Amino acid sequence: MIGIFDSGFGGLTVMKEYLKKYPDFDYMYLGDQANMPYGSHSKERLNKLVVQNIEFLVKKGCKMIIVACNTASADALRHVQQIYKGNPTILGVLVPAVENALDKTRFGNIGVIGTRGTINSNAYEREIRKYEKDLYKPKDKRANKEVKFYQQSCPLLVPLTEEGMIKSTVTRMMLKKYLRPLKNAHIDTLILGCTHYPLLQKEIDRIMGKNCKVISSAMSAADAIGDYFERHPDVLKSISKNSKRIYYTTDCPERFEDLGSRFLGERVEGEKVEI
Amino acid sequence: MIGIFDSGFGGLTVMKEYLKKYPDFDYMYLGDQANMPYGSHSKERLNKLVVQNIEFLVKKGCKMIIVACNTASADALRHVQQIYKGNPTILGVLVPAVENALDKTRFGNIGVIGTRGTINSNAYEREIRKYEKDLYKPKDKRANKEVKFYQQSCPLLVPLTEEGMIKSTVTRMMLKKYLRPLKNAHIDTLILGCTHYPLLQKEIDRIMGKNCKVISSAMSAADAIGDYFERHPDVLKSISKNSKRIYYTTDCPERFEDLGSRFLGERVEGEKVEI
Repeated sequence: MIGIFDSGFGGLTVMKEYLKKYPDFDYMYLGDQANMPYGSHSKERLNKLVVQNIEFLVKKGCKMIIVACNTASADALRHVQQIYKGNPTILGVLVPAVENALDKTRFGNIGVIGTRGTINSNAYEREIRKYEKDLYKPKDKRANKEVKFYQQSCPLLVPLTEEGMIKSTVTRMMLKKYLRPLKNAHIDTLILGCTHYPLLQKEIDRIMGKNCKVISSAMSAADAIGDYFERHPDVLKSISKNSKRIYYTTDCPERFEDLGSRFLGERVEGEKVEI
Repeated sequence: MIGIFDSGFGGLTVMKEYLKKYPDFDYMYLGDQANMPYGSHSKERLNKLVVQNIEFLVKKGCKMIIVACNTASADALRHVQQIYKGNPTILGVLVPAVENALDKTRFGNIGVIGTRGTINSNAYEREIRKYEKDLYKPKDKRANKEVKFYQQSCPLLVPLTEEGMIKSTVTRMMLKKYLRPLKNAHIDTLILGCTHYPLLQKEIDRIMGKNCKVISSAMSAADAIGDYFERHPDVLKSISKNSKRIYYTTDCPERFEDLGSRFLGERVEGEKVEI
């Protein structure tokens, strides 16, 4: 069983990509709605919540866990990887997106958008700097020698998405406002550093134009797991494959069902649990 | 000492009104940022959080406690009043606003705006129906015999206010959208049923026009306490009066300081506490 968790429904956009690639696996999703949004917690509190969620999923039999939240991946992933030391395997959604962006960028102008928590943590920049020597290959003679990196927090996009205002004028205005500095910096690659943003990707694509590749951390995470399994066939073998899907939420099952179904693109029913 | 609590900074608009009327009292403010926003919790979870906060303030010596959050007043006030039975005195922000609206309305067309939690609880309507027989006096021959009541949830106003977007076009557009059904219903009295909304009152006044009185639950709560003290001089006597102000927050003291100062209109420094 693969365990996937997030503060609410956002992680379901990550699960959606996994389901496309690996429909046979058993999945258990945990939405920690009681403590949402993760973007506004301190680092210490977030660490505590992430450990609680992992404990829950491990007890339920998950052999591999995906931290399907950019803020939690940014702030708490290293912390929990040190605690659990590979048992279970814990993966985040940041590194796959960074690797993907470094591979795709033409001129070495990369941008990221995310919640205030993710952006303030500076985790994307740290990962870019860590991997760029190995992965960045300029594809044009005018390209930067070192990656230029730009980031922008977009705190209103989560509430706007959760209100279902995907196509509203207000959302378009906020997107234009948030994306303007990145457009002015002529980025050629934009990372969607929040699991809610794939729902806004059409409009983001339109605003950024043809010269900017938009990379979702959800899709990158699902793509990257294939490489992981190649390097770790034992982990692949340990995951049960009966196409089971189990959903838990720590609060408001009705809201989980309503919004979750929109995020996953199919009907979900979440059982409420105390953690 | 008077204890005041809310999920974050919103309750500071209530405290601001208390400070104007009773600057000599000692006040302790608790912002439960770790569990914000209260508007998206289930009723059970909210009850639990409210009891935790009250326990904390009682242990710190508060003789009177103000639940300075509309959602918590709507969902959990009766629950904690039954637990504590007047020791300490626990007051909310709903009933004062309802009494004020019933007193002021000319035609008996009253509206309320609030978070999704407050509106879904239907608590304002319940209180209106409970008090209207005693308090509603039609002031015009065209007035309704019974109060007509309209409500509207405005889930984006809290994030917009917290982003400091008080005067932005986007906020104005959202306000117009949310207020349109109330304006079309020709309400003559509007209750601001969320502690964040007083920051938007100028624009709300402008949109609703001269024929609609706008009533803030913050100001109504502070006005009502005078009557309460007249009926309960012993409670008034029990409150210490050294003009002390103490601020606690359950998470992110920097954000508490930044936003809190904007909401209170003077500098606050919040000490972080675990509850």
